[in-house]
Amino acid sequence: MERIESHACFDGRQEVWSHASGALGCTMRFGVFLPPQARRESCPVLYWLSGLTCTEQNFITKAGAQRHAAEHGLILVVPDTSPRGDGVADAAGYDLGQGAGFYLDATQPPWAPHYRMHDYVARELPGLVEANFPAGDARGISGHSMGGHGALVAALRNPGRYRSVSAFAPIVAPSRVPWGEKAFAAYLGEDRESWRQWDAAELVAGAAERLPLLVDQGDDDEFLASQLRPELLRAACVAADHPLQLRMQPGYDHSYYFIASFIGEHVAWHAEALRRPV
Amino acid sequence: MERIESHACFDGRQEVWSHASGALGCTMRFGVFLPPQARRESCPVLYWLSGLTCTEQNFITKAGAQRHAAEHGLILVVPDTSPRGDGVADAAGYDLGQGAGFYLDATQPPWAPHYRMHDYVARELPGLVEANFPAGDARGISGHSMGGHGALVAALRNPGRYRSVSAFAPIVAPSRVPWGEKAFAAYLGEDRESWRQWDAAELVAGAAERLPLLVDQGDDDEFLASQLRPELLRAACVAADHPLQLRMQPGYDHSYYFIASFIGEHVAWHAEALRRPV
Repeated sequence: MERIESHACFDGRQEVWSHASGALGCTMRFGVFLPPQARRESCPVLYWLSGLTCTEQNFITKAGAQRHAAEHGLILVVPDTSPRGDGVADAAGYDLGQGAGFYLDATQPPWAPHYRMHDYVARELPGLVEANFPAGDARGISGHSMGGHGALVAALRNPGRYRSVSAFAPIVAPSRVPWGEKAFAAYLGEDRESWRQWDAAELVAGAAERLPLLVDQGDDDEFLASQLRPELLRAACVAADHPLQLRMQPGYDHSYYFIASFIGEHVAWHAEALRRPV
Repeated sequence: MERIESHACFDGRQEVWSHASGALGCTMRFGVFLPPQARRESCPVLYWLSGLTCTEQNFITKAGAQRHAAEHGLILVVPDTSPRGDGVADAAGYDLGQGAGFYLDATQPPWAPHYRMHDYVARELPGLVEANFPAGDARGISGHSMGGHGALVAALRNPGRYRSVSAFAPIVAPSRVPWGEKAFAAYLGEDRESWRQWDAAELVAGAAERLPLLVDQGDDDEFLASQLRPELLRAACVAADHPLQLRMQPGYDHSYYFIASFIGEHVAWHAEALRRPV
């Protein structure tokens, strides 16, 4: 592991690290914010998964989350959104290939060798973080848009691994919207049965634990009706009696201005769960 | 004037406007954050001047200032850092020409026709803002690096125009550091006597009002000893008995992580001055 950025930030440190990922077969970068509390004690970790086109930089420079993580003593870990590099398959559009890993484990050529972002985010990265930083095993996960999908799916597929999960403007039912249909057909193949295990609205029905979901969604989001469709998650949660707090935020769009406006409430909500005695 | 961006943000609006500037002879953009209080009443305005290479975007996306402006009911106005466009003179480096206007009024060819950022920031822009937004005439000004220089100079040259001024890592004595010497020689010519009226450490000696200066400076800033030299401002303020609060912040560098960490304190400090009865 190599540290490639380090900045004082809210009395903690905002760092960026580079490492060789076994899960992805390429060099990856992730951002980590170490709150001041991490100088003297082990802290819980909140993972953040970003949306289409993003790298580890978007959230760490635009969301203003460090202020809140410093207040609550949470480490923030922010991976990139796909495998990267010349040897990694890519596609022309912004919604497939590099920058668009969809936090799943691909089964189809040419994607299968590198596109294993679920394995990376839910297994390899926590192992790396917990071995190399003052990080306990209390984990929360959140994300935006494609990353909101990734956070919900990571939590629903891995009971016991996360103590809290939330999302901003998530793609809740990728099997039923254009972004998801394009990505799943490429990464997973045409058999839609295989898509169900990567679709939050499908996974809720068989969830082994009732981890409460906190979802914020702007009602002026340009992708609301076509790609995000939070009503499908609401219906699935009602049917499965799964706890969901879905908050429609009037006037907010899909941008980081929306995330910045509510990230403080999400960090506080995760901190409450992550610091609660178990 | 044309509104080219509008986003809900902390229950207010983050907007970007474009307009034809008479002072600069080109089309300019500026960011404006309207806090929720501006829906029902006139609010004070805090102007922010950005550093080398920046546009109006850097501060509005990275500093997290809107949260604090919404809390205190301040409008934030964030201009670009130079005149722009194909018809505007430019230079090869990052520290002269477009993106590097130095907030002065140039007298030398080829810069003089467009490079009048002081006139723009201190006169034209406040007129535009106060005519088109719910903005009162209580004005504060702050900035970073080249923009910290610009904020200090705008306040010191225009007694009575601002009620508060602060700066992050400002170039306090441009006449005596490489960035300033290069820019002043180009924009103002080789006669160093003409440089004095654009140099905060020189202007303090003849300041017509004792407006207190708040300056934050990271002690791990890569430009501290070569370009910023806050000790020159301190010496000038001691000699002139001018009130200065210079805070050396341990471990902080020149980045927006530094600004984000302390912008809340600056906004609160400006709000106290701007909302005080006069």
